Amino acid sequence: MHTAPLIPVILSGGTGTRLWPVSRESQPKPFMSMPDGQTLLRKTYTRALEISPSETPLTVTNREYLFASRDELALVAPTLEGKYLLEPEGRNTAGAITLAALHLQATVGDHAVMLVLPADHLILNTATFKTAVVKAHELAQQGYLVTFGIEPQHPETGFGYIKKGAPLELGFEAAQFIEKPSVATATLFVRDGQHLWNAGMFCMQVSTFLSEMEQHAHDVLNACAACLVNPQECALPKAQGLELRKADYEHVPSISIDHALMERSKRVAVVPSDMGWTDIGSWSAVRQIAIADAQGNASTTDSVFVNCTNTYVHGDGRLVATVGTNNLIIVDTPDALLVCDLALVQEVREIVRQLKVRQHPAYKLHQTVARPWGTYKVLNEGPLYKVKRIEVKPGASLSLQMHQHRNEHWIVVSGVAEVTNGERVFLLQANESTYIPAKHKHRLTNLGQETLIIIEVQSGAYLGEDDILRFEDIYGRTHTS
Amino acid sequence: MHTAPLIPVILSGGTGTRLWPVSRESQPKPFMSMPDGQTLLRKTYTRALEISPSETPLTVTNREYLFASRDELALVAPTLEGKYLLEPEGRNTAGAITLAALHLQATVGDHAVMLVLPADHLILNTATFKTAVVKAHELAQQGYLVTFGIEPQHPETGFGYIKKGAPLELGFEAAQFIEKPSVATATLFVRDGQHLWNAGMFCMQVSTFLSEMEQHAHDVLNACAACLVNPQECALPKAQGLELRKADYEHVPSISIDHALMERSKRVAVVPSDMGWTDIGSWSAVRQIAIADAQGNASTTDSVFVNCTNTYVHGDGRLVATVGTNNLIIVDTPDALLVCDLALVQEVREIVRQLKVRQHPAYKLHQTVARPWGTYKVLNEGPLYKVKRIEVKPGASLSLQMHQHRNEHWIVVSGVAEVTNGERVFLLQANESTYIPAKHKHRLTNLGQETLIIIEVQSGAYLGEDDILRFEDIYGRTHTS
Repeated sequence: MHTAPLIPVILSGGTGTRLWPVSRESQPKPFMSMPDGQTLLRKTYTRALEISPSETPLTVTNREYLFASRDELALVAPTLEGKYLLEPEGRNTAGAITLAALHLQATVGDHAVMLVLPADHLILNTATFKTAVVKAHELAQQGYLVTFGIEPQHPETGFGYIKKGAPLELGFEAAQFIEKPSVATATLFVRDGQHLWNAGMFCMQVSTFLSEMEQHAHDVLNACAACLVNPQECALPKAQGLELRKADYEHVPSISIDHALMERSKRVAVVPSDMGWTDIGSWSAVRQIAIADAQGNASTTDSVFVNCTNTYVHGDGRLVATVGTNNLIIVDTPDALLVCDLALVQEVREIVRQLKVRQHPAYKLHQTVARPWGTYKVLNEGPLYKVKRIEVKPGASLSLQMHQHRNEHWIVVSGVAEVTNGERVFLLQANESTYIPAKHKHRLTNLGQETLIIIEVQSGAYLGEDDILRFEDIYGRTHTS
Repeated sequence: MHTAPLIPVILSGGTGTRLWPVSRESQPKPFMSMPDGQTLLRKTYTRALEISPSETPLTVTNREYLFASRDELALVAPTLEGKYLLEPEGRNTAGAITLAALHLQATVGDHAVMLVLPADHLILNTATFKTAVVKAHELAQQGYLVTFGIEPQHPETGFGYIKKGAPLELGFEAAQFIEKPSVATATLFVRDGQHLWNAGMFCMQVSTFLSEMEQHAHDVLNACAACLVNPQECALPKAQGLELRKADYEHVPSISIDHALMERSKRVAVVPSDMGWTDIGSWSAVRQIAIADAQGNASTTDSVFVNCTNTYVHGDGRLVATVGTNNLIIVDTPDALLVCDLALVQEVREIVRQLKVRQHPAYKLHQTVARPWGTYKVLNEGPLYKVKRIEVKPGASLSLQMHQHRNEHWIVVSGVAEVTNGERVFLLQANESTYIPAKHKHRLTNLGQETLIIIEVQSGAYLGEDDILRFEDIYGRTHTS
């Protein structure tokens, strides 16, 4: 029998508010670095390419995360151009998976098998996972919508459960889906040996999936099909991706694939697997994968522990000293600090809620802001000035732009810049500077092989990011810097 | 009877390692801001001037802290030039007080009464304190070495105790001095009503003090007298202060005034007072003076508390969010964070010990470094560059200097600079810049009335602070920048 191609479909969404202050709206959970320094998205791409080395993964994500997603993919496969479906906003998993299925139907064919992988999960035993995927791939070609089930380790109330039904050669039929149960119910599930955690990953042939959607959730299917009729112009070539129009997309019901399809279909199978799965739902999950000392302490930054036990410090360079702490999580970022009792990690989302109510920038933005061309970080600011460190990736270029109100001093400290300043275009080496008065067109480009770093000192009575007029932009941006 | 002048003698020393990371070697406890934003030294000057508005306080401090001390005094009394005795290193209280007494003998006279105030204590009830000082001043003129006794609130083992002897009209004779007792002994002391905490403050006529020193501690007295024969050239006019020579000063025995004199003299009195005294010995003492909410939480920075109790956050602007913490101290500074159980605040010194062993800069320096002319802060650095924010006080001037290895870009962002760059001297306004190549003599001066702020971008293969050659310096510095 001819094997149908297995296409990884990466669902890269989810804000992960319980993982604040590292996960923020502008840089959500998939972009969060694990204690080994790799992001969850990068790990997901690595897994996907190990399983399907010859297939291009299809990423469904918010259009704001396109460039950051491409950077993560490039770290894993420098020469591979990914494929992308860009949503104007997150509307749960049913729509995202259906869009991917319709897109694959059009570009690969009905026979393609989707391996749906959320980008914010962690899998510790990759070999075991691969074995499970081989079984799932086979079951998918037999016409099953295949889920992955994890032997429950404790009565977790934050996960969904799948009840095993009739045994199949390579797994089980799924008898029932149970959304987040009570502790009592979860305790029964752990004991009875009949229930598995629902890992939120799927393996499904496009033809099966779409016909089941037609039968059980045709409203989602129709709304998604409409989105693909006339997608928006976007920064990507057509072959690489589509950006959906907000006007179409807002008709897609916001519903999970479990509710929309899995709970209703009679063709669902589950492959049990001991793959070391965790959804990194909270800081206690991150802590579990860090290597702790004999007292249970672990740190990702410069730290000193004095008489501490079970203390996890997640930082990025700053010194953190702890005395006498126990069962504590400390998460240190340049502009915000979290100190949280290990038993109350779920309540971190309450912090985010309160910050959002206060319109505090720390719920949304990091101090280092990612842009398609690199990053910038505000080092210092006063009423009439702002100092930024700007990092431009090799080959990248900021838009040709102009400011009405602010003047800019640029000093190159690493790499070589090609600068457009008014009518002049010239190279600027390290230790050279240029001055760009307000109302002068200017542009910064890195033609070199190494990262370009410049220090920008802005001066003026108005310094808002919205004082920008764009003339040309290689990333197709019209409304953000 | 003619009243002898009461001269405040401020002892401004003590590193306060238990108050790390705010108190550091370069900026010790007297310079630490309390929750109301005022430093302990400033509060001490305020107290001193309320009691003796017409006398100039004499400050005994390390020469490294001269300019910072003058700044604190200027905040309290802008037109008052203080007087200073500058020690090359700290050698406990006996030497410091004896030097002050000898200096006052020579400059004011034998009849002067010293009010010795350590600059790292806090007094909450100023009116009560004043009343006690009036009594002490009178007793001092009657020939007593007067101490201040605090009714003990709990069996503290970190303080010294004074046993009350025969009653006097304005206090008691001091019957006995007891250094840090055991818990059992301290508990007895609290119960028996005969013992008081030794507040470490003294009121003594210079003549009495020196004759008692002659009798009980002539080694200290002689060594101190030798220090004053030929003091060092210093940045201050003679009338304002003296800097002691290290070669003389190192012969002064390092001993406390309690051991050297108070435990031996028969002329010691104690004035009991309910002045709300605390020595701010640890973070729990700082927490006690902060205003807490109904749950016992208090913060000096932007913060969010979720389900917390008795949590104290001492920060300086950065957002600190806490979830489920109890009896916890969090101290946040730009480059180092402390998280400490309230019961173990004494062990903070162990952190400092470990950092010192590791030669970690955070035991010594703050990110913002104080200089006589203002402050600088490293905003960012890389292998070949460093970005600094430099703040120059009105009327202040950096030394005329030169660097062998680094080039500097200066951009004025606030105020007006007078710049010397090679042979040229010119004014630089906000939004103007200049470039100083290596091996060019240069100088930065603030002739204006407002603070000058410049952003300095250094570029070069070697960026150490020791790459500096000084030609002229208005602060008399030869070895530090």
